Amino acid sequence: MRRALELAASPGVPLGPNPRVGCVLLADDGTTVAEGFHRGAGTAHAEADALARAGERARGTTAVVTLEPCNHTGRTGPCARALVDAGVRRVVFAQADTNPVAVGGAETLRAAGVEVEQGLLADEARALNRTWTFAVEHGRPFVTWKFAATLDGRSAAADGTSRWVSSRAARLDTHRLRATADTMLVGTATVAIDDPALTVRDEHDRPLPDQPLRAVMGLRDLPPDRRVLDSSAETVLLRTRDPHEALAQLRARDRQHVFLEGGPTLAAAFVRAGLVDEVVAYVAPTLLGAGLPAVADLGITTIADAFRPGVTDVTVLEADGPDEQPNVRFTMTPHRDSEES
Amino acid sequence: MRRALELAASPGVPLGPNPRVGCVLLADDGTTVAEGFHRGAGTAHAEADALARAGERARGTTAVVTLEPCNHTGRTGPCARALVDAGVRRVVFAQADTNPVAVGGAETLRAAGVEVEQGLLADEARALNRTWTFAVEHGRPFVTWKFAATLDGRSAAADGTSRWVSSRAARLDTHRLRATADTMLVGTATVAIDDPALTVRDEHDRPLPDQPLRAVMGLRDLPPDRRVLDSSAETVLLRTRDPHEALAQLRARDRQHVFLEGGPTLAAAFVRAGLVDEVVAYVAPTLLGAGLPAVADLGITTIADAFRPGVTDVTVLEADGPDEQPNVRFTMTPHRDSEES
Repeated sequence: MRRALELAASPGVPLGPNPRVGCVLLADDGTTVAEGFHRGAGTAHAEADALARAGERARGTTAVVTLEPCNHTGRTGPCARALVDAGVRRVVFAQADTNPVAVGGAETLRAAGVEVEQGLLADEARALNRTWTFAVEHGRPFVTWKFAATLDGRSAAADGTSRWVSSRAARLDTHRLRATADTMLVGTATVAIDDPALTVRDEHDRPLPDQPLRAVMGLRDLPPDRRVLDSSAETVLLRTRDPHEALAQLRARDRQHVFLEGGPTLAAAFVRAGLVDEVVAYVAPTLLGAGLPAVADLGITTIADAFRPGVTDVTVLEADGPDEQPNVRFTMTPHRDSEES
Repeated sequence: MRRALELAASPGVPLGPNPRVGCVLLADDGTTVAEGFHRGAGTAHAEADALARAGERARGTTAVVTLEPCNHTGRTGPCARALVDAGVRRVVFAQADTNPVAVGGAETLRAAGVEVEQGLLADEARALNRTWTFAVEHGRPFVTWKFAATLDGRSAAADGTSRWVSSRAARLDTHRLRATADTMLVGTATVAIDDPALTVRDEHDRPLPDQPLRAVMGLRDLPPDRRVLDSSAETVLLRTRDPHEALAQLRARDRQHVFLEGGPTLAAAFVRAGLVDEVVAYVAPTLLGAGLPAVADLGITTIADAFRPGVTDVTVLEADGPDEQPNVRFTMTPHRDSEES
């Protein structure tokens, strides 16, 4: 199963709506007959990939798979059926597939007389497809809210200038995290005022080949010259102010991981709706004394009700030059979600 | 000189208006004849301490001292004269004494035919008496501004509650730092609203035996039941709103290190006056969305003018219990002062 997880995590697989899956076919003596992994939407599933490589040698083998074999016909056929047809004797899988359209693979296999064992390294398998698993189980994308603030909680000065609150190292780190999401989300106000490109760029400020979807939510019309409307990535306008509705629209587009980048009012709406699953906050050792707050009113009036998401990581991002300052990144998960998932 | 610096830093010396000084008397063959150090105001200076221990054996020795021997008669006689009288042949000192009332020791020694060498490990000696040196050279106490804030820059919720914004580890750390200052400073508003004790306490919340002076500045009268007026430490009221005037009054009381603990308006006044020499900021991974800002208007309107003191240290204070969160401490020095001193 460790090898199957390694295969699933193979580099170069583009982000897409599908989970990352690996599969190893083992002979009775434990030797590997064939390996396979899923290379992204529209390509063969991991099981089909391994079966194709094994050919006739698949008969009588044990298939070790990181995710329960699917039971439905999408762009590819159901894997449970393919395993039965290939004469696989036994299937060991890690994570159960709770995707409503794919569920039932284990049952199909058992009904066909295939021995089935499940749960081995299930946590690792879930972690590998963290946001896919979340989206499938919650029926909406996983939401990471990212913000950057000064020590006194400002994300821009009184005149609106904000370049740069964060250090270069923090900005690079943000691009690295953006690249792990399939959707960037901001409000129309941010687009109107800040005109962000919302693209993922490398250390030389060059856009990466794969770009997340850019989603802009709100009822305000966008000025046509905004950078978010250029051709460097796909952009979608979500004509709503309701976080639930925005996420439903994104889920309908197979989105599983939304990277929410403000502004303060939009972020507050998501926090108040309980729709923030992860908070990534960059703190810069700078003071402004006035300006745009990093987050708007959360409806909290007393310290006992403070929003205290559980901290999963604190990292000091060292200054990468003499004119730079160290910044600190906090990564947090609201307890509610860590209990649920 | 290393040994003299060790002696100067001997544990148990109470904070006081005097610098910490160590002295070693060496024979011609390099062997130690006697050692001494200053044990606080009203006791013998380091040189006098060493000379008393050496007695007649002081004659012909080299005195290695961390600070230029003083030239004035205070509660004790001038050390430069005492060294001459004891027949010391040569004096090596680290830091020059720029204290106007004590200056001139080297000259007195040379005039009396004593060989003088200066500057050896001067930086270490200055660091040992960082705030004393600062106060002597600038004619005012060194000011450390400490504040604690949430990730969104709040130091209290909308209803004024602030217990606790910081973690237990951060609060303990604050008491450790308070103990290094000789003065706590707040505004009358903070006393009226928050009623802080402003004492230094240990991990069991017990006051330490030596307490810094508690200074409250402002024109507002204090309610007589305030904790700052109790007998657990000395308290002084500074009837002014002007940071320069407050520091002048404190300097007149021989204060060398002021620990400024807010509130936001007072802190902003010190920052705007350029009278903050060190910033210690604790950040808690908590969000309030509203409430009391950690710092009031600094007169900064654009990001290029942001107050960006140089960061000397970033420390993650780990959670010391399951209900606690890690906090981060930033220690910063405005560039202005790092250039000056």
